[in-house]
Amino acid sequence: MSEDAAVIDEVVERVRRRLQAFQAGTEQPCTPAPKKAESGEACADSCFACPNVDSCGTVGAIRTGVSRISPDRIRTSQDIAPFIDHTLLKPEATKDEVLKLCEEAKKYGFATVCVNSSNVGTAARALSGTKVLPIAVVGFPLGAAMPSAKAFETREAIRCGAKEIDTVINIGALKAKDYALVLKDLAMTVAAAGRVPVKVILETSQLSLEEKIVGCALSKAAGAAFVKTSTGFSTGGATTEDVALMRKVVGEDVGVKASGGVRSQDDAMKMIAAGANRLGASASIAIVTGGTSTAKY
Amino acid sequence: MSEDAAVIDEVVERVRRRLQAFQAGTEQPCTPAPKKAESGEACADSCFACPNVDSCGTVGAIRTGVSRISPDRIRTSQDIAPFIDHTLLKPEATKDEVLKLCEEAKKYGFATVCVNSSNVGTAARALSGTKVLPIAVVGFPLGAAMPSAKAFETREAIRCGAKEIDTVINIGALKAKDYALVLKDLAMTVAAAGRVPVKVILETSQLSLEEKIVGCALSKAAGAAFVKTSTGFSTGGATTEDVALMRKVVGEDVGVKASGGVRSQDDAMKMIAAGANRLGASASIAIVTGGTSTAKY
Repeated sequence: MSEDAAVIDEVVERVRRRLQAFQAGTEQPCTPAPKKAESGEACADSCFACPNVDSCGTVGAIRTGVSRISPDRIRTSQDIAPFIDHTLLKPEATKDEVLKLCEEAKKYGFATVCVNSSNVGTAARALSGTKVLPIAVVGFPLGAAMPSAKAFETREAIRCGAKEIDTVINIGALKAKDYALVLKDLAMTVAAAGRVPVKVILETSQLSLEEKIVGCALSKAAGAAFVKTSTGFSTGGATTEDVALMRKVVGEDVGVKASGGVRSQDDAMKMIAAGANRLGASASIAIVTGGTSTAKY
Repeated sequence: MSEDAAVIDEVVERVRRRLQAFQAGTEQPCTPAPKKAESGEACADSCFACPNVDSCGTVGAIRTGVSRISPDRIRTSQDIAPFIDHTLLKPEATKDEVLKLCEEAKKYGFATVCVNSSNVGTAARALSGTKVLPIAVVGFPLGAAMPSAKAFETREAIRCGAKEIDTVINIGALKAKDYALVLKDLAMTVAAAGRVPVKVILETSQLSLEEKIVGCALSKAAGAAFVKTSTGFSTGGATTEDVALMRKVVGEDVGVKASGGVRSQDDAMKMIAAGANRLGASASIAIVTGGTSTAKY
């Protein structure tokens, strides 16, 4: 545990120093981007621009207070329902399936429904006047779309009724240690979301320990409301070890969502005990009725 | 074969009749979308609007003449190179890996490199002044982003140097027989692409025979330059049966790209014989040097 803490401190400090260097101008990854370009040559800077950390009002501003779930509050499996994002992300999902998802969320009292952005308008209409909120995923599931495209999709999804946004970190940029691009990408989505909370999916199964820590630190710095483990479309889902690590890095003022492979009440309770205060699941009904599901997305 | 032809004729005719009905106003799926909406209720129409087929100048305009590859033209494995989109779509791909991909494409004479949109600026710079074109994938790999988001990503990718766009059909809308939404979604991307050719990925492994045919018919109607089998991120890739079917539906003036699981010269030659005139592969070097690869994306 103390070794973990030392690694976290070291990595967070390293990230902090690099960002300070960008801000101070002593490390300058790019020149101003041209407004319009005919070729990739001239345009590249706008794709890989440095994050203008100071001018982005949302960076560093944690806007959504979240608190841990006390295990004492969970007396029956149904008590877990208000912490579940009821999820349907498979690309072949039809409008009828989205409507069914919304009915289930209303019936069981789930926090939200989580759908692809082309379905969020349908979900928002179906949930109108209820406590269940529609979530749209953005840049999903690869996180490899351009920052501007993720920001635009965020704005459009919110215009169509999304009340939370789940985006995916730029995994390739994180692995290349291009923290400037990672932060800029996240900050643009957070800025586009305005007052709507943004969750950042790290896709933990693809990351090293250091990459998980840096991903959490940059998400928090960008103003994310939550960090989230997995898309459900990669090689692995949430683990209690990753959830505990993420909670340790982001502290108590940013949420942790465990997603991917949470299929039973037992799974859910373990994630909550490890520090999760939101769960993403398509097996939500099994979780609150004491069963186990094999559903994937 | 004659049974297949009858099914194609029937389905294409059915699609044509439904689209005519939309145009004639006898089947009206939506009212005009409001400019701004506070809730999903009011906004839903802009998410699921009808395709304004007439006002979209690109619908029905097949802009890129493509011709079949005569098997006679392929004498050595290297002759396949100009028909290959050299592909790197895994989300963890770093900038260095994208640059390596570009160097390989130049060395072996591949037609293009195919990357996620956040990497297309890097690819465009690296390929500047060469014959190799950069492709950006859009709405990838689920195809479930909002039509406006896909169109925006298309414009941004082209601004950063993309010379071809590979998008993904809205699979859920196709399965729900919401052909209006499928067509609108594709037509908006084609319109956003302007003179840049658009390939439409059907994700054939997820579709029924009828859905494959309708997907091809709608792609052609929307002005796609190519139909394409697979993203490489689903449960199956290109088959010779699907390629032959797609070629039969789109005819000779729209291209067919076989992608997903094309890993050897033998695979490539079978796809070409079935009617493909473009191949998507990450195993491109193995294909042109006579090897076999296990690479996936």
